[in-house]
Amino acid sequence: MSSTKPSLPKGTRDFGPEQTARRAYIMDTLRRHFGRYGFQALETPAMENLSTLTGKYGDEGDQLLFKILNSGDFLSKAAPTDRESSQALLPKISEKGLRYDLTVPFARYVVTHQHEITYPFKRYQMQPVWRADRPQRGRYREFYQCDADIIGSRSVWNETELTLLIHDVFADLRLDGFVLKVNHRGILNALAKQAGMEGREMAFCVEIDKLDKIGRESVMANLQGIGASNLEAVMDFLTAQDSPENVLKKLSDRLGDNQAIAEMAEYFSTLQSLPGRSWNISFDLSLARGLTYYTGMIFEVKPTTVQMGSICGGGRYDDLTGVFGLPGVSGVGISFGLDRIYDVLEESGLFPQDASRHLDVFVIHFDEATFRHGQQVVQELRSQGIKADIFPEVTKVKKQFAYADKTGVTKCLVIGEEEMNSGVYQLKDLVSGEQTGVKRAALLAELTKG
Amino acid sequence: MSSTKPSLPKGTRDFGPEQTARRAYIMDTLRRHFGRYGFQALETPAMENLSTLTGKYGDEGDQLLFKILNSGDFLSKAAPTDRESSQALLPKISEKGLRYDLTVPFARYVVTHQHEITYPFKRYQMQPVWRADRPQRGRYREFYQCDADIIGSRSVWNETELTLLIHDVFADLRLDGFVLKVNHRGILNALAKQAGMEGREMAFCVEIDKLDKIGRESVMANLQGIGASNLEAVMDFLTAQDSPENVLKKLSDRLGDNQAIAEMAEYFSTLQSLPGRSWNISFDLSLARGLTYYTGMIFEVKPTTVQMGSICGGGRYDDLTGVFGLPGVSGVGISFGLDRIYDVLEESGLFPQDASRHLDVFVIHFDEATFRHGQQVVQELRSQGIKADIFPEVTKVKKQFAYADKTGVTKCLVIGEEEMNSGVYQLKDLVSGEQTGVKRAALLAELTKG
Repeated sequence: MSSTKPSLPKGTRDFGPEQTARRAYIMDTLRRHFGRYGFQALETPAMENLSTLTGKYGDEGDQLLFKILNSGDFLSKAAPTDRESSQALLPKISEKGLRYDLTVPFARYVVTHQHEITYPFKRYQMQPVWRADRPQRGRYREFYQCDADIIGSRSVWNETELTLLIHDVFADLRLDGFVLKVNHRGILNALAKQAGMEGREMAFCVEIDKLDKIGRESVMANLQGIGASNLEAVMDFLTAQDSPENVLKKLSDRLGDNQAIAEMAEYFSTLQSLPGRSWNISFDLSLARGLTYYTGMIFEVKPTTVQMGSICGGGRYDDLTGVFGLPGVSGVGISFGLDRIYDVLEESGLFPQDASRHLDVFVIHFDEATFRHGQQVVQELRSQGIKADIFPEVTKVKKQFAYADKTGVTKCLVIGEEEMNSGVYQLKDLVSGEQTGVKRAALLAELTKG
Repeated sequence: MSSTKPSLPKGTRDFGPEQTARRAYIMDTLRRHFGRYGFQALETPAMENLSTLTGKYGDEGDQLLFKILNSGDFLSKAAPTDRESSQALLPKISEKGLRYDLTVPFARYVVTHQHEITYPFKRYQMQPVWRADRPQRGRYREFYQCDADIIGSRSVWNETELTLLIHDVFADLRLDGFVLKVNHRGILNALAKQAGMEGREMAFCVEIDKLDKIGRESVMANLQGIGASNLEAVMDFLTAQDSPENVLKKLSDRLGDNQAIAEMAEYFSTLQSLPGRSWNISFDLSLARGLTYYTGMIFEVKPTTVQMGSICGGGRYDDLTGVFGLPGVSGVGISFGLDRIYDVLEESGLFPQDASRHLDVFVIHFDEATFRHGQQVVQELRSQGIKADIFPEVTKVKKQFAYADKTGVTKCLVIGEEEMNSGVYQLKDLVSGEQTGVKRAALLAELTKG
């Protein structure tokens, strides 16, 4: 029995009552809208076989996978030569890892359950992922991802729905200060060709993706370093800001007829056909996204009133499950970043006050008799759906009020002998200090009014 | 790029849309009642330091901990002699493990955050735990625990509240066929003394706990083997069934005045003072529970209509955090077993039909124009909180109905050219086959009625 004060592994966090309630407020909002749009929830295990995870996130990603030690006498399969290096020993002592994102487990799920799935299939998944990254501000080793994907349909209506969903979610979170940047990999690929990078379009996108971080000059230097040409004109073109209509027109003029341009045109025309909505959308030709598997439209949401990276992003992919032997599964998906959305709402003061209010009312009693009576009142309120509580033992009234105050309660119901006998209780608002008499039968109405 | 069909680690499971929705139905019910009773949600990380976890669950538990390999060149700290055995190597290559239950992380949380906590502190926690157990029917390597604890108060009202909570939860889940067995470790300890086992009360409880599994004769043989005496009388006494009043009376007669008996008497008298309730409670002196840290009342819920182990259990403990250097934190807690509750509800046909219905209505269209019109209708319904969807591309009506049917939709809204022009849509019930005309403005009312 050691008595050292325990600590948490670095990069991991406890979430106390207030944080958990606020995180639940965001996740409940996401869940509600995912549900309205017909997405169904899935859950996959925290552990996957390393054969499922390895090789899907690049060499760096493989390094950042948390690996789980085999159970029991794990060294029994390791020959003396295996024990000479970490690299040789790893496959002998570890077969499982913690999931690194929700995309690879989803792809694995689709292959495992391919005969049960009806396409188009809309799924959402909100679960933690783990990465052995160096922890720093805003970067944790355990964090939630909240993903929604539609697979098995190439219709642009799917991209439109994700756009509507994004607007609905952030409107419901009262986060009006955001911009949804959209672009299309097909357009970037065409521009890559104009920069002399045919066949190396992804390398072009990877460099363009760094514009925000390292600036135009450095990006151009990098692109020149890998053989790009005609860069001034291409960079001028893709960094110019304009309305969607004008961008589409300029694109047609420059690139001629093109599947990607047609899809973007359909996307904007569908949005315009939906009445009574306004859009926070920017058609930004410099948006590239880093992930290699995107092949169509790409999305990124950034807050405009707070300094913060993207809080939501995604795109269309042609081949989700080819790596697991099931080709031809295309789709489009987005991922909401719970931690960053939390930080934006907190910095902007946008969490509703009652998101973390854990009690509607707290009952104050004076002695054994009023404690007994209060228990009955509390149970009656709870059965009516009110979050009610009572101090669990007879103690000083002052101590009970102090407890209520410390735990963030704003309304106390005072039940003394007189109140117990008359059936009219004193309801005290701890914020305003006001106190009013309320009959037992009127409590529910009083506690649930605006 | 391998193309082997991927598999899951043994003992882990995918939860598809229907299972996830049904699990959410149970967890939402728990969450709602925890909230009404004033419990606040906490979340702790999946990983804890091995120094936090090791030694808390006995030798067997230590074996069953999933250990996480250190990142990077994990062998660098292991001298050649360390590499000779698993036991010597383990502390050099692994510092973290996956949580094994929610009690130890909660104890660690209380110590870490001791200066922020106001007592009494009521918390609930619903998160997965991991055990490297041999998988078998009903036993998994990843499963959820749903725990509620009240710490910092010794009042019997806390035990009463947990009893009320258990009744409310199972009533809401429509699971009437259950019995809540209650007992008190203080009574078992007194009976252990009568069996000549003073100073070895826990060993007595551990054997009594096996009554259900191995039967009275084997338990008596085991107890005799460790030196118990006077066993026939003690066993007769603790296995006799009777009403709480009679059990209390028999206990007083046999044991005299006793703190445990006084607490049980107060518990039953408080329950009786609460009006309009009926109780599924059995005062069962043979209930012992296996966990060593219980010191007061203990609880166990078993279904009565389905063959199944306990679906909820708990008890009072005197010392939650002493092992982490913070003595004197007492409390009482219960844990609901999500997987077993799921199995009971499924076997008893108690899941509500709409628990896994992912859409309220599916819109059927005929061509480009009705698809566009349908998109607007779908968005209007979604904005009103209806779970609505539309096939994302123009395709045969037959195919759309087949899709709706396969995905479990029961209501389709048919929008052809005539319906679009008249504004009266055909609402078809796929179960009854009935079809009725509904005006656009009346859709919300029609779709939300009974």
